[in-house]
Parts: sequence; structure tokens; C-alpha cells
Amino acid sequence: MPTEYVLKFSEGSRFMRDLLGGKGANLAEMTVAGLPVPPGFIITTEACMEYIRLGRQFPAGLEDEIREDMQALEEQTGKAFGGKSNPLLVSVRSGSKFSMPGMMDTVLNLGLNEKTMQVLIENTGDERFALDAYRRLITMFGSIVLGVEREKFDAILDGAKQREGVADDPELSPAGLKQAADEMLKLVEEETGKPLPTDPYEQLYAATRAVFDSWDGERARRYRVIHKIPHNLGTAVSVQTMVFGNMGEASGTGVAFTRDPATGETKLYADYLANAQGEDVVGGERNAMPIEVFEKQMPQAHAELAEICDWLEHRYGDMQDLEFTIENGKLWMLQTRNGKRTGPAALKIAVDMVDERLITTRQAVMQAEPDGLDQLLHRQFDPTQKPEVIARGVDASPGAAAGRVVFTADDARKAVLSAKTPDEGRVILVRHKTEPDDVGGMEVAQGVLTAIGGKTSHAAVVARQMGKCCVAGCSAMNIDYDKQELEVNGHVVKAGDFVSLDGTLGEVMLGDVPTVDSEVLGGLLDDTEESQQDVVRYFKRFMGWADAARRLGVRANADTPEDAATARALGAQGIGLCRTEHMFFDTKEGEGRTRAFQRMILAETDEERDAALEELVPYQRSDFEGILEAMDGLPVIIRLLDPPLHEFLPAEQPEEGQHDEWRRDMAELCELTGKSIDDIRGRIRALHEMNPMLGHRGCRLAVTWPAICRMQARAIFEAACNLKKRGLSPMPEVMIPVVSIAAEFDLLKKYVDEVAEQVMQDAGVRVEYLVGTMIELPRACLTADEIAQQAQFFSFGTNDLTQTTFGFSRDDVEGKFMEEYIDQAILGANPFDTIDRAGVGEMVRIGTELGRKTNPELEVGICGEHGGEPASVEFCHEVGMDYVSCAPLRIPIARLAAAQAAIKEQGTGH
Amino acid sequence: MPTEYVLKFSEGSRFMRDLLGGKGANLAEMTVAGLPVPPGFIITTEACMEYIRLGRQFPAGLEDEIREDMQALEEQTGKAFGGKSNPLLVSVRSGSKFSMPGMMDTVLNLGLNEKTMQVLIENTGDERFALDAYRRLITMFGSIVLGVEREKFDAILDGAKQREGVADDPELSPAGLKQAADEMLKLVEEETGKPLPTDPYEQLYAATRAVFDSWDGERARRYRVIHKIPHNLGTAVSVQTMVFGNMGEASGTGVAFTRDPATGETKLYADYLANAQGEDVVGGERNAMPIEVFEKQMPQAHAELAEICDWLEHRYGDMQDLEFTIENGKLWMLQTRNGKRTGPAALKIAVDMVDERLITTRQAVMQAEPDGLDQLLHRQFDPTQKPEVIARGVDASPGAAAGRVVFTADDARKAVLSAKTPDEGRVILVRHKTEPDDVGGMEVAQGVLTAIGGKTSHAAVVARQMGKCCVAGCSAMNIDYDKQELEVNGHVVKAGDFVSLDGTLGEVMLGDVPTVDSEVLGGLLDDTEESQQDVVRYFKRFMGWADAARRLGVRANADTPEDAATARALGAQGIGLCRTEHMFFDTKEGEGRTRAFQRMILAETDEERDAALEELVPYQRSDFEGILEAMDGLPVIIRLLDPPLHEFLPAEQPEEGQHDEWRRDMAELCELTGKSIDDIRGRIRALHEMNPMLGHRGCRLAVTWPAICRMQARAIFEAACNLKKRGLSPMPEVMIPVVSIAAEFDLLKKYVDEVAEQVMQDAGVRVEYLVGTMIELPRACLTADEIAQQAQFFSFGTNDLTQTTFGFSRDDVEGKFMEEYIDQAILGANPFDTIDRAGVGEMVRIGTELGRKTNPELEVGICGEHGGEPASVEFCHEVGMDYVSCAPLRIPIARLAAAQAAIKEQGTGH
Repeated sequence: MPTEYVLKFSEGSRFMRDLLGGKGANLAEMTVAGLPVPPGFIITTEACMEYIRLGRQFPAGLEDEIREDMQALEEQTGKAFGGKSNPLLVSVRSGSKFSMPGMMDTVLNLGLNEKTMQVLIENTGDERFALDAYRRLITMFGSIVLGVEREKFDAILDGAKQREGVADDPELSPAGLKQAADEMLKLVEEETGKPLPTDPYEQLYAATRAVFDSWDGERARRYRVIHKIPHNLGTAVSVQTMVFGNMGEASGTGVAFTRDPATGETKLYADYLANAQGEDVVGGERNAMPIEVFEKQMPQAHAELAEICDWLEHRYGDMQDLEFTIENGKLWMLQTRNGKRTGPAALKIAVDMVDERLITTRQAVMQAEPDGLDQLLHRQFDPTQKPEVIARGVDASPGAAAGRVVFTADDARKAVLSAKTPDEGRVILVRHKTEPDDVGGMEVAQGVLTAIGGKTSHAAVVARQMGKCCVAGCSAMNIDYDKQELEVNGHVVKAGDFVSLDGTLGEVMLGDVPTVDSEVLGGLLDDTEESQQDVVRYFKRFMGWADAARRLGVRANADTPEDAATARALGAQGIGLCRTEHMFFDTKEGEGRTRAFQRMILAETDEERDAALEELVPYQRSDFEGILEAMDGLPVIIRLLDPPLHEFLPAEQPEEGQHDEWRRDMAELCELTGKSIDDIRGRIRALHEMNPMLGHRGCRLAVTWPAICRMQARAIFEAACNLKKRGLSPMPEVMIPVVSIAAEFDLLKKYVDEVAEQVMQDAGVRVEYLVGTMIELPRACLTADEIAQQAQFFSFGTNDLTQTTFGFSRDDVEGKFMEEYIDQAILGANPFDTIDRAGVGEMVRIGTELGRKTNPELEVGICGEHGGEPASVEFCHEVGMDYVSCAPLRIPIARLAAAQAAIKEQGTGH
Repeated sequence: MPTEYVLKFSEGSRFMRDLLGGKGANLAEMTVAGLPVPPGFIITTEACMEYIRLGRQFPAGLEDEIREDMQALEEQTGKAFGGKSNPLLVSVRSGSKFSMPGMMDTVLNLGLNEKTMQVLIENTGDERFALDAYRRLITMFGSIVLGVEREKFDAILDGAKQREGVADDPELSPAGLKQAADEMLKLVEEETGKPLPTDPYEQLYAATRAVFDSWDGERARRYRVIHKIPHNLGTAVSVQTMVFGNMGEASGTGVAFTRDPATGETKLYADYLANAQGEDVVGGERNAMPIEVFEKQMPQAHAELAEICDWLEHRYGDMQDLEFTIENGKLWMLQTRNGKRTGPAALKIAVDMVDERLITTRQAVMQAEPDGLDQLLHRQFDPTQKPEVIARGVDASPGAAAGRVVFTADDARKAVLSAKTPDEGRVILVRHKTEPDDVGGMEVAQGVLTAIGGKTSHAAVVARQMGKCCVAGCSAMNIDYDKQELEVNGHVVKAGDFVSLDGTLGEVMLGDVPTVDSEVLGGLLDDTEESQQDVVRYFKRFMGWADAARRLGVRANADTPEDAATARALGAQGIGLCRTEHMFFDTKEGEGRTRAFQRMILAETDEERDAALEELVPYQRSDFEGILEAMDGLPVIIRLLDPPLHEFLPAEQPEEGQHDEWRRDMAELCELTGKSIDDIRGRIRALHEMNPMLGHRGCRLAVTWPAICRMQARAIFEAACNLKKRGLSPMPEVMIPVVSIAAEFDLLKKYVDEVAEQVMQDAGVRVEYLVGTMIELPRACLTADEIAQQAQFFSFGTNDLTQTTFGFSRDDVEGKFMEEYIDQAILGANPFDTIDRAGVGEMVRIGTELGRKTNPELEVGICGEHGGEPASVEFCHEVGMDYVSCAPLRIPIARLAAAQAAIKEQGTGH
């Protein structure tokens, strides 16, 4: 036989995920190891792909193979599939290499029909059990394989319970179950025009086909596009002898974690339901029994489970999430896989497992989820006081927030304005979805909650930009704007009531839940022995392992000494992007920076212009001193002025409702400059741009007005020289933005070098410095060899590079049509979140290679938001960058992602 | 001697332009051929480069070599340099490989000083002549070599003429000349602190140094950057024995063209000045003698000159522009080079020379200037009635226009509105420079004239976009806005006076000069035997030679049947870009297209949307039928809707002074849609974009609203099927714009294919068609391999590709900082005019190569404005495109440029 389409559990291993799927490979691993696994076999992923290739036809020989393995199973169990004396029942489960929602999952109790059910009743003497199994088969087969709506089956069962006045499934009488099963069979026949198949093999083949079809379905295909899973992997089908947790009180079913997934505590954690089948636990309809009760009631099964868990952790080197069933006191293993866990738990488990010598430090690094670290660094709810979660949505923007519900942006503003204290003015803006008009309300709110939309929705994008907590796509929520109330999962919340949002987890809670600072961040900033709680120590040890493995440097995007200090505490090895825009605006009342810069913009002579700029030097010098001092001994990349000048002037005409403010502003400008209002408006009109993103900004400003560049250079080098004289080691790196032509860079570098030389001569000290450029335009990538002849470093500005490479104005696509592009799977991910390898990544690769060709010493990094996103960090590693730079709180994530990329490259993850 | 820095004229040839410069090589060629060239030698370009390399020092041995060659010259002429009996005088001229303004040009009469001048007086007995030569030396040496302002010398000469009450230089008495020379010597000493050098060798070395220095000067360097001439070519210096055209009435000097440069007539054309030196002719201060008078007065010299011209044309295979001097009746040749000519002349000369077997057809094609054809196709002034040109500026936008002068945009609008007839309402807007506020005035004006700015100035860019005649940078013009008048070269023009502008030549004339249609275009459109004037026949023959040579196809960008017909007459082989935007706007009063499309945009349900679109089908179908019929049998690329939807709606709030119109518009929309004004304004606000260039447009619209794409596809294929049924051969090619992701293209192609299939089935005929994409975003270039898997053609939209590759919003850079970039030589040319090879060109190359990799059948073209610009066409040829597409009137230019590129590639230009 050229291809074997079916393998027994005993013929596989955990290394055969490609062929057997994750679920099948783990069942095989446990079987071979002698663990109590109900026997069975696996129809391979190759069978699935061949089935699809043949236009949804079983390949030749597959049915025979299944029959052969089924017969072997009959021999092994002493039962017969569809047999008249001792019927064999099986379950069918899908399992692909990667866990994938949207795929058909499980059908239990295949092999049952009216006849075998009767035999089952006779053999077990348990009519209720057999009927329960039968109605489950009809429900699952009817809904999953035949496509009848699941709700209709549930309604029949609910009807039966109502008739008998019982609440829980196990309390239903056999007669009630019988009537329900009959009604369900009728439902299937009505909906599909055919009776439910009674032939066991027909049932098995149909279930297998349904699994294969679901692999090729719209929803699964879309999921794979988004998660970049190839379409040609296929799914396997596990066929397994049924064991029954619903055979009475000595039976049951449960899910377990080998350690506590919330805290990481080294202790078996399980949810057990007596007299139930697996789906009951997962469905969460009945309350599970805690592990302590389970241990007391079934000491032997518990002991055996604990031993198995220990073995599994040693074998898999990770915390396991498993499913088991107890049939009349005997433990059976149905599944095992690596378990999901919270950020703090992940940290503790990793460190504990290394100490227990279960895994190496490199394995610990590889197993961690970079985003899991995020939870550790944001403000969060006091875990001791966290109430019940009433609804879940998408974790759209991290953080914790509590406030009174408002339903419109206007109400948000009014509530905040009329509040007597900031504390009283805390509101949560709740909208079906947000639109540009809502932005003002979002700004003043503590957090945002929406009913529809995912991570790329308008609400999500704007909230993340504002650093504001947001839970989006809470689809269970219904908002009645007229009644000014929302309803969610049975809870009614009125305008003015408190709710709390956990943006990190996507959770909604009732009431004003108190928040606490991040323990980890607090501990790192206050780096004394007594402040070091366990989690901080774990964090430091774990990050130390990551640092030992990584090759990429990690810097921070930080504009103030405070941010720089946070970044340094979190492990930043320098600043990759210090924006100077804010240094042109007043930071304190009456400073005069804004007016001075406006005077410079409106100046008509060089003298006026120079005089206005001169006023800014002391302010900027002191800003630069602060940052260079906070980063003493580490490189600090300072970007020269970037935005277009019109951003610093009032609008040409007042917006609605802002006439008075605008007039006051203009009158001041007139007095300041001695110009008429018409002159000033004319200048504003002349500076107006159709597409400011592609306009007169960055280095282009300095080509036109070299004095701006010279002023900033002077402030930088005077600051550095001052520090140097105080014995410090400032390392400024001047970054020229928006370069698309080598001659632009060369000209500005000349200006900077001239000023640096002059300042250092005047000060009598010398400072080491670099001059480089932000690579953020396609042409800069393609002519990087020319630019690198004089540039000493490149920092890829992948935010803007993504905008120009795609032709996507971020303001105009995110929260607008980006969501649609991802829904329709035109894009696998938002390219502003994770770097687009095929386009933007290719630009970066070309730019890096060309740049290094003419300047092998070139320092190459990234300072777009991608620098803190794990998949993008991996790309930066692969492309050979020297460092990534990201927001201070993302630094640990970047350190871990960099370490994982390095270990992955070396192929020594195991 | 390792390097020879000096060559005699007799040692060179016309093929040694690299070493001897153009001027020197041609002098050598004529010398060797035995033509009467005053003897001399050439200091090579290598000497120049070595001089610069050494930090502006003569290389070792150069002075000796010059002395040796000077001695040889003395022997040959029997004169002595600085000699006391028979002094040798020489001229010094610069000459690089390419003609280059900004370089030092000519110094005559070197070797003169007080003593040699006395000898000259004694020898010639002509005091006036000797003094005249002396004052010329002082003027040229003083101004060109020593840098004293030329105007100060001219003022001294003018003073001398005023004193004697004479108008022309030759009328000055010897005493007057003597006094002038003395004053000039005093001027030089005052300005430079040193007397003018009297040693002849010192004079010669200084003049040589000045030539070399000017090669390395700021102005020349900038010119070379702009014209992409390498800096390392260097300039040569020709040193030539003086002959004197100022030795009385039997002497003189002239410039000649071997054929008439204005008409191309085969007839010697010369301007001759008796008793003058070369600079007098070029300066244009004295009126030259026509050739007929010259022939009559000096028959022998004329005959000899005619013979030489004939010889030169045979030798050079091109019309020559030459300088000669007659010294006491003897003819001397001082220079020859290929002559500049008008468009019609170029055509006639090329055809005549081929008929005369002077050149091959391929040489004729190579010698033509593509832009010269432009003149032949635009409306132009009646050549029989063209008056004196009173001023010249930059030929910023071609065409001819006459109108009354207005000085503000407001006055332009008022004049046009208050005029009783369109003819009366013709105005020319005259501004120092234009700004965005002037655009409204430019729109209603016939033409635009500015005092400052070049081809990239605001006025130039906007005028070209409007297809409006513009002369920019007429720097001689002074405008007095208060007095409402302009002054230029002594003419005063008041507001309301007529002026005429020739935008093709950059000329300004007084009065209302009548214009005529293009003879060539008229003849091609009316293609009958009797309509064929000479110029039309020449045009057809010449273009036939070009077509035989070229490999690139040439298509037209045309949106209407009229434009398509013009394009076809001019040789278009199809349409490369038919924009469909205008088809959504009413083309006649009350059509209802605009309102239907606005209703579609404002629709809230799919039904509303579909109903509104349905109304547009008949209109668009009929538009497409017209174009496909005009191009019957040739491919027509139709681009689906491109601009963002907000462009089709009114502004959210009225602009100043347009409240009434806006309210009327909104009220109509409210009635039409049944929506409130607030709803409509809300929708407009939601559609507003920060950077519309990078927003929701092109294929992105169709991803969101497939119905728009389907409606257009239906109209296209219904139109094609209708024509097919009538026996025609429509060849539609559907182009999907703004693609950056292969999946976008694949989705829209699916829509188009589905509609096409349906329409063809309904119609019962089949039409061949292609579906392709406009490649106009960097990401499309880098992922062209993916896109080409389904795309059947690529058309590079290099306008937008230039915008995104550079990050240049065309609206925001042209007429704003682009000019500065070119002035500062940061850019060699405006990348919107000529393709930027290093960046945008590289994108095109990558896109073409990747696309052909997965789809070797891919049809590749360009439809940006570059498709009609010769240097860009050459690039398109090199990169292996199938065709270029350009504006109808640019088609002949593209055909010629394509032919030149092909011939150049084959290396058989000669």
C-alpha cells in the first residue's frame, strides 16, 4: 500500500503533529507510554488533503483501512461496532497541527441507534444513561454533521426539563429523555429531509467527511489567512472508543491543569463534574466540583491523575491542560496539550520549572508568550478585590479603568466638565461602535466599551493611540440609547452606574473596582532589596535568561526624562527615538515656546526668524540635558523637527463653537507679530496642505529654513557639552527625518556637523556623536547605498514606511476600511500592528542590505511601533538589525521576542 | 613626457570631444581638412582636471608646454607674442564636451598692452582699430578674468559715445577710445587693487586659470547636476591666433547657419557685421546685414563660405551653426557646431538631408529633438503676423494666447464675468509670481505671465495642469501693482492693454496677435490628398522612419471619443488610460449622473445603492461605446473609478462667499435622498480624509462597495457586446487602480469576470478582454510576482508612484518647495516631469521583473505623464516595457523618443 491513511494510537508519537494533528499525536504519545487512553486510531491529515484534492471524495482504500482498524478495535475491546450484544461506541474528534477555532470539533457516541441503544440498556441496566448518550449523539450529529441549528436541539431538551420541573440534565427521567430523543429525531428528519443515519459506518464516514469539509470551510480558511497557517496542512480525525462519565455518581468528567493557570502555583488544578460527558464541563452550564472535593471523593483516581500530570510535565516540559473521564471509578485520559496561563503565572511556572530542572533556561524563554509580559507592567485591578466578570469582549487596548457609564461623547464631556473632583468625573464611554465624532468623548473618558469591532476597529485604534483602556466587540451587550441603559448577559446597567473594564483581558465588571500599580514596574523603579517581591525577582531572573540569548539590542522611544528613567529600569540600552515636536510647545504656563515658534513661522526676514528661534534654545537645551542625563552612558537618538509647520498655527477659520477662543488666539498673534489678521490667515492658507503626510515636513523644512535645524543642533550639543563638563558621558545621535534623497541628508549633516564643531570649540570639550537618518520612505530604501555613504545610522520608521509603501494613510484607514480588509482576509493582519513582511519588510531588507553595502559600520535599528511587537521583532532579528526601539512598557516584550528569535534561528529550542 | 597637456589644432579631430572639448575638436577637424582656420592649440580637459585635483595649480610642465606651442605659433605666423615689431595676439575660449552656460566663454586680443598696441598702430596705420581692440581686451579680461562688473565697462564706453554724440561703437574717435581705455584701466586698478597685467604670458595663464576655475564654479556645478553631466569631464581651452573683423569696412564678423533655422529652407543664412568683432553680433547691439547684402558686397568671401558650409554639412551630417571673421577680405572660420532650429525647420531639414543622401533615415531620427515636435501640434501664432518679441521668459506651458492684461485674480474673474462676448473676456493674468489664491484667476485667463520662477514654479505647474499657456520667470519685467502697469525692456503696458504670449517659446509680444490651428494636426485629422501641405507630408515621412526603428508601442491617455480620434490620427496604437471619473458627473445640463452617484454614496441600504447605480449604466455604456468605437480594433484600457467618494459631494460647510450656492446644493440633496441636512453633513464628515491621496480610493472603494465595480464592468461589457453585434472589434482591457495587495486584485478580477461572463451570455456574443492593474504603489512593485499570477497587464501609474516613493504630495510640493530643491541641486530634475531612475525607476524595474517572473505573457506599459517625456520613454524602453501611453498631442514625441531609444541601444546611430 503506497500511503497509509490510518494509524493506530500505538503507532504514533508526539512528534507526528504534521500527520496526526496535535490532538492525535498527544493521544498516541500517551498510549505508547502506557497511560490509560481509550484505544483508537487516527485518520491522517494526508487523507484530508487527498479528500479535498479529489473534490471532497474519500481516496481509494480509505474506507477499507478504516474498517480494518475498526475491526482491530473490536478485537481489542471485545465489542462490536453496531454489534447486537456488546456494541462499540466511538468518538470522532478533529485535530490539526495548530489549534484552530472554526473547525468541526467533536461528535460523541457514534455507533448508537435505536437497536444498539436497547442493547446498551440491557447490558448496563441503566436506561437513563443509554438514553442520555443517545440524545447527545442526535444533538451532536444533527447539529455538527448535518447542520441543523444547535439551538433547536437545546430547546427540545429545555422543554423536557420544564415539563418535569427539573433544572439539571441528570435529573431528567428516562421517559423525558426518550421523548426528547424522539422529538430530536423528528427535527432532524424535518430539517434535512432524511432520517438520521442508523448504520454505524455511515455515521462514522459522515462525521469524518464533516471534519474534512470544515477544514476547507470559509471560516477556517479565513482564520488560517489571518494566522498565516498554510491551507495545505489538513486536519486529522481521531476515532476513539467511548468511555462514559455519565454512568452514575462513580463516573464523571473533568479538565485539569498541572499547575494553577492564574497564579502559577505548583498544584494540580481541576474542574470535575460527576455523571457528565465532556461537553458539559466546557459548556460551563453546571457548576464544577473543586479539586479538593474530587480528591476526597475519589482518592485513588486523584492520585493516579496527579501521577500522570507529573509524568506529562516531565515529558512535555510544560504545564499541561488535559481532559479526563472516570468511568465507574476508572480514570481515562482523553487529551493533553500545553495550557494557557496569565502573565504572572507564566513567569512563575517558567522559573519554577527551571529550578525543578524540568526545562532549561532556553526552553523557558521559548515557551513564554511575549504579550503575556504586558499584563505585568500595566496598572491593573486589585486582584484581591476583583469581582465577577459579567461579559467578555476583545482585549483592544490594555489597562484597567472604572467609571460611570455614559452613552454619548457629549455626555462624557459634560460629565467630566461638571464634576467637582477628577475622581467624580471618571466615565466609561459605551457605544455600539465609535466613529470619528466620538474621539472627543474618548479623550476625556477613563475607558471605552463597544459592542462591535475587533482590534482594528476605530475604538481600538484610537484608544491604543491615546494609551486608553478599551474593550471592544462585546457582542453580548445590547445598548438602548433611548432608555439610556445597556443589557448584557442578564445584567442591566443604566447611565451613571459604575462599570470597570480590564482592557488587558477584555473583561467587563460591575461596580467601581479599585486598581493597583504594577508590582513589577514599581519594584524595578524602586530597586532596593526590601522592595523586591517574588514576582519582581522572577521577572529579573527570567529576563536575564532572555538577555543572555538575544543578539538584538533593545532601546526605547521616549521623549522625556521620566519616560527615559522607566525605560532604563525596564532594560532599555539607549533611546532609539526621542521626538522633539513637543519641545516647540509650552510645557508650563506662560513659557513662551509656542509663541516664539509661531513668530518664527510668520517671520518675513531672516533677522525676525533667527531672533524667534534664539528664544527656544535655552528651553530645548534643558530638555536635552534631562534626557541625556537620564540615559548617561547610553546612546540617545534625537530626531530633528518632523511635523509640518501648519500644525503649530491656529486653523485658518474657527471651528464651530470655538469662535471666541480662535479670535483671542489670532488677536494675540497679531499683537505678537505686528501683522494683520488677514496676513496671518494668508500665511496659514499658504501653509495648508492637501496631504500633509506627503508634504513639507522633516528634513524638507530644514532645506527651506536651515535655521531650525541649526537651532536644534545647537541645543543638543550645548546640552551634551554641559554634561560632559560635569563628568558625564552623553552619547547623542542626531536623526534627520523624512529623507528620500541622499543630497537632503548630506546637506543637513553638513549643517549639524558645522554647529557641533562650533559648539564644542566654544565649550572646550569634545563629545562623541553620530548623525543618521530615519528611513521611512520607499525611495530612501531603494537608494540606501547612496544615503549610507554619509549616514552613520539608519532607524527604520516603519509607521510611515507602511503608510507610503501601501499608500495607506493611517488616519484614514484604521477604524475605517482596515477592519473590512481583515474580515475579508485581504490582509492577514493590520500592517500597522505587525510588520508586512512581503512589502514593508522587503523595503527594510533592501534598505538594510544596500546601506551596509556602502557602509559596513552602519548602525541599523527600527523605531516604528513594530519595534515592540514580537513577530516584527523576529523579523528585525532575521534581517540583521542591531536593535529595536519601542515604547518603555514594551521593552521586556521586545527583549523576550529578540531572545526567542535568536534561539529559533539557532534551532536549539529543544 | 607621460601626458601631453597641449595639442595643436592640426593634431586633433572631431572625434576628440572628450579631450579637446566640442569647440576645440571642431577647430581641429576644420584645420586638418584645410579650411581657413587661424592657427592655434588646445589645452586639454585633462589639464583642467589635474589643475583642480592639485587645488587649482597648473600641473608640472604645463606652462612649458604652452610656451612651446606658443613659440610654434610664432614661427607659423611670423609674429611674436608680446613682440616689439609684429605682435601676436590670441583669443582664449573654453570648450567642454557638452555646451554649458555658466562657464567662462571668450577673451579676445590677449597679448595687447600699451606697447604692443603702439606697434599695432604703427604696423596697421589704424589707430582706431588698435585702440578698439585694446579697450575690448581690457573689458573682457577685466570682467571675465578679474571679475569686475561688466556694466561698469559698458558705462565708460557709453559715456565716451555720449561725449562725442555718436550711437555706434565704430563711430567713436580714436581719442574717445583712448580716453575710454584709460578710464577702464583705472577702473580695473581701483576694483582689484592691481593694474591689469601687461605681460602677455601672464595674461594667457590668468585667462586659462579663469576658464578652469569656472568649470569648478558653483553655477557650472549646479548646471551639471541638473543636466546630469559628470563633474570629472573638465573643460578644454582653445588658444587661437586673432584675426580682426574690426580692421575697417573690408573686415567684419558673422554667424551663419547652413540652412534657415526658422523654416529649414536649404539656403545659407547669416548675420554679418562689418568692422566688428564677434561679440558684437552675439550681443545684438548693432543691426546685422542680411545675407543678400553680404553676398553682393563680398561675393568671393560669400562663395567661399557657401562652399565651406556645404563641406561641413557633408562632414557633420547636420545643419551647422558657425562663426567666421573676414579680415581685409580674407575669410577665417572660428567655430562650427550643430545648429539649433524650430520644430518645422527640424522636420524639413531632416527630410531634405535624407533626400540629399547626406544622412540615413536612422541618423535623421537620432538627430531630431523630440520636444521640437511639440511646436508642430499646438495652436500657434500666425507666423505671417507675428510681431516683435519684447521680452523672453521660461517656456513654462506650451501654446499661444492673447488677451488684456490684468494684475490680480479678482480682476481676471471680474473682466471675464462682465465681458459681453468670450472674445472680449480674454485676459492675460500678470503676476510677480502666482500663489494658490491665484488659481481661480488662472482658470479664467487665456494665459499667465510671471516675473519670477521656472518650469517648476507654481504658475508653471498649475498652468500645465490646466493645459494653459504660460510664460514664467520673465525677469526683465517690473510690475507696479499700485499703478496697474508693467514695464519690460522699455515698454510700458497698462492694465487693459493687449499682450500675447508664446508659451512654447517663452516669448512676450505686444498687441492681440492672431493665432492659427496647428497645420500638422489639421492635416492629419483631415487625411485627404488635397489637405496635405508640405509640413504634413514631411511629418508623415519622418514619423514613418521613427516607427520603423522603435520597439515600444505608443498608446494615448484619452477619456473621450474626440480625444481618442485625435490620438489615433497622431499614431496611437490603442488607449493606455481611459479615466472614468468624469462619467459620474453630468456632461450635459440636467443629465442626472451626479445626483444618482451622490444618492448611491448617501444610501443606507443595498437596495437604495443598487437603484442609484442602475441609473448610471446607460450613460456609462454609451460613453464606453463611443471610445471603443473610435478605437475599433485597438486595445482600450479602461480604469475603474479611482478618486475617493468625498470628491463627489459638496463640502461639509460652505466656503466664504458661496453660502447660497452651497445651501441650494444641500437642499436639493436633502430632497433627493429624504435625509436631513445634518445627516448629509455627518456623512460628508465621515468621508473626510486627512490624506486623501492615501485614503479610501481605487480598488479599496470596490472592496467596500462591490456594486460600483460591477456597475462599471456591466457598462463596459454591454458596450463591447453592442459593438461586436454591429460587426466591430472592441478590445476592452479593464484596469483596477490603487492595488497594493494581490488579494485586492484577485477579488475585483473575480467581480469583473463574473459580470463579463453574464453580460456576454445574455448578449450571445463573446468579446476578448483583459483584466489588469495600475501599478502605482511601492508595495505593488515589491509584490508584483503575486499580483501577476492573475493580472494580465500592468500599467505603471508613475505619477502616483512618484508621490508615494518620494513621499511627495504633488499638490503640496510643486510650486512650493520643489523649485528650491532644484535650485539647490538636491534634485536634478522635477521627478514628476522626468522619471527618477534611482528611486521610482528602480520600483518600475523591480515590478516589471517580478511580474514577468510569474507571468511571462504580462503586458507592461506606463500611463503616468512620464509616458510622453523623452528621457522617461528611453527608460521605459530600457526596462523592457511593451508600450508607453501619453496625452494625445505628446504621441509623436513618444514615437520619436521610442525610436531614438531603440537605435541608441543598437549602437547604430552613426
